[in-house]
Amino acid sequence: MSKYPQAIENLIAEFNKLPSIGRKSAERFVFYLLKQPPHELKTMNQAIEDIKKEIKQCSICQNFSKEDPCLICASENRDKYTICVVAQPQDVLAIEKTGQYSGTYHVLHGTLNPPEGISPSKLKINELHKRVKENNIKEIILAFNPDIEGESTSLHLKKLLSPFNLKITILGRGLAMGSELEYADEVTLSNALKDRKKA
Amino acid sequence: MSKYPQAIENLIAEFNKLPSIGRKSAERFVFYLLKQPPHELKTMNQAIEDIKKEIKQCSICQNFSKEDPCLICASENRDKYTICVVAQPQDVLAIEKTGQYSGTYHVLHGTLNPPEGISPSKLKINELHKRVKENNIKEIILAFNPDIEGESTSLHLKKLLSPFNLKITILGRGLAMGSELEYADEVTLSNALKDRKKA
Repeated sequence: MSKYPQAIENLIAEFNKLPSIGRKSAERFVFYLLKQPPHELKTMNQAIEDIKKEIKQCSICQNFSKEDPCLICASENRDKYTICVVAQPQDVLAIEKTGQYSGTYHVLHGTLNPPEGISPSKLKINELHKRVKENNIKEIILAFNPDIEGESTSLHLKKLLSPFNLKITILGRGLAMGSELEYADEVTLSNALKDRKKA
Repeated sequence: MSKYPQAIENLIAEFNKLPSIGRKSAERFVFYLLKQPPHELKTMNQAIEDIKKEIKQCSICQNFSKEDPCLICASENRDKYTICVVAQPQDVLAIEKTGQYSGTYHVLHGTLNPPEGISPSKLKINELHKRVKENNIKEIILAFNPDIEGESTSLHLKKLLSPFNLKITILGRGLAMGSELEYADEVTLSNALKDRKKA
């Protein structure tokens, strides 16, 4: 025996495709599932079935949603002229949780990363361009991770959207709450100094 | 929006149950799947369906298998009187890969861990006891991880099986191949000294 039975190998291969899951973790998932009562596997199957059936992409902001347009795009209470552009659906939830934002969103579903083949056409950038062109957008907030991919996506969008008459902003940079000045990296500390404000 | 749509939350909850998978990883799995073409989700669903249908537990060694008895227990070429007792199916494959073992196995599906509620009755220990009692077993190899749970499971089985006339062994202890003496912990080095052999 140098391999598991085929059915086990097949499911290991499927789990192995999930982000950051290696072969060993995939094996552990399968053997965990094999130890569960059959209804547990059925529940997982049903849940996978359901996202396939029930979840679509909002034709306005491209976020995953049960409705199209999604609840945020359809809401009367949201400012339709401010768009916060994020890389992924998780970032929408993170910003929503602050309770500080009442505009709408646009989910790119990734950030630019040419070495990994993620060019502008792979992201929902055309959709953003069209949205800005056809509506009277006042402000675009570029809310990406402060890393190379995030910065270059910001740069690309800034260039792309500069012909339009709108304000383009990025998220503030500085010390994260709870972090220690002593351990802050130079760039973070430089940003915090540059963006210092009246106490 | 303080939560994802229900279908997404449901699948996050399912993935969240997998061993060592937290909420954030579970979210990433779901959004990864949502970005895949529908046939990919179907493949995963089919694979989960298949392990439920095709994989059973071998009634002799308790390992997961397509056949019952499994290929190893059914094989004419394996020594039925030597049983290597392991914690999990993955350990069977690891030992098989050495090509050095021609006996059979017994999978306990865990190790004793009273604080987490894993008592002897939760493991396939009764099945092992019965197997030893009813067959003329010559040797039991206790092949557990060299940690507290592994050692206490070994101890428990040694006590349980001592009334039978058989040899009980554990895996050799010492320096792992490729490890550095300088960084070996005291217990490993003590074991290596105790078990030193003619060069």
